Amino acid sequence: MRNQSSQTVPTITAFEQSPDRGQGLARDMPVRWALEEVGQPYDVRLISFNAMKEATHRALHPFGQISTYEEGGLALFESGAIVFHIAERHAGLLPQDANARARAITWMFAAIATVEPPVVQREAAMYLERDKTWYEERLPLVEDRIRSRLDDLANRLGDADWLDDGFSAGDLLMVQVLRRLSGSGILEQYPTLAAYVARGEARPAFKRAFDAQLAVFTGQVAG
Amino acid sequence: MRNQSSQTVPTITAFEQSPDRGQGLARDMPVRWALEEVGQPYDVRLISFNAMKEATHRALHPFGQISTYEEGGLALFESGAIVFHIAERHAGLLPQDANARARAITWMFAAIATVEPPVVQREAAMYLERDKTWYEERLPLVEDRIRSRLDDLANRLGDADWLDDGFSAGDLLMVQVLRRLSGSGILEQYPTLAAYVARGEARPAFKRAFDAQLAVFTGQVAG
Repeated sequence: MRNQSSQTVPTITAFEQSPDRGQGLARDMPVRWALEEVGQPYDVRLISFNAMKEATHRALHPFGQISTYEEGGLALFESGAIVFHIAERHAGLLPQDANARARAITWMFAAIATVEPPVVQREAAMYLERDKTWYEERLPLVEDRIRSRLDDLANRLGDADWLDDGFSAGDLLMVQVLRRLSGSGILEQYPTLAAYVARGEARPAFKRAFDAQLAVFTGQVAG
Repeated sequence: MRNQSSQTVPTITAFEQSPDRGQGLARDMPVRWALEEVGQPYDVRLISFNAMKEATHRALHPFGQISTYEEGGLALFESGAIVFHIAERHAGLLPQDANARARAITWMFAAIATVEPPVVQREAAMYLERDKTWYEERLPLVEDRIRSRLDDLANRLGDADWLDDGFSAGDLLMVQVLRRLSGSGILEQYPTLAAYVARGEARPAFKRAFDAQLAVFTGQVAG
């Protein structure tokens, strides 16, 4: 199904008001980035926090979140699944070689299943437990769990540019997970991982995606 | 690449000693289950907790965990990625129709990215924070986050047997996530989800996989 051209421009959903003030950490960002990498134009439907929890949106996304992806008769949710769908339908995000492709997909799952959970846990603590008596004492434990993952990730990356040969959807998701550590001071303890994130952010497709999501926040119309 | 027959029997890794006393919650279980669903024989290499953290195993699994998958010149890690690899190479775990296939893959990601994290968080609290002053007070907050996901999941499942038409790799991973709630009393509050898990556990392939992982713990040779 590679390189299958679509007659329909897909529509994705994004927050009407950016919860991260345009830092590009919301779940539309990896989807936008993937679409930009493969050169697929897309439409965006903005949605409010309230509307996201209502039945109309839940019919698209059972967990009442973003992003979603609609293309003709197909409706998908989960940013990882949407990135995979884009990667499978277009050239540029997964290697042609079957074994290299399977390894790139493995890194997609590793980003989501193994590296992201402790990173999101830290955010959950900061957003949901900041007023709790245990917050100060517990946060370092959560951050140690992040460092345990980053130790392993840095060891595997070594001095390579990307996780497995060329840039892939696995790198896209991993860079996006690591970007969530911005401002934590943790990523800075891993210079090779910080450089890896910088390589991702330097990609023209990343920049186009970032600018498009930022334009929603600043009120400037995306190009 | 469907129905491609392999000359090589794949080898997966599993714990030498079961941390869950054979309940089938370790990460080899979904891999075994997927292999059984598609009728692919496999070999198992048992590994100790110490060996799992050493360089030989980390060359296969950068995060020093199970499971891994080796087949000819291909080496994969991450149980979700391995299940997907099996599902892509064999008939039986993903629909043939392209849109239905994309939706089934979406449920694989939803199981891993959206439902599993709060479930594993509860385990992390129980294993790593039971001696902390905040344990008793914080656990209900974590369990509320699980219930929030299960509310949405139960709403979507409704009275259907599986998440999207026929049984798929998405159901396999979702059932396996929900099984981790065994003994928590939480799943029992969702009769339709408990029945969904029971349907998964009633599948002959599940039973074969469960018995095989149990045999490692009981010391009886798997059939």
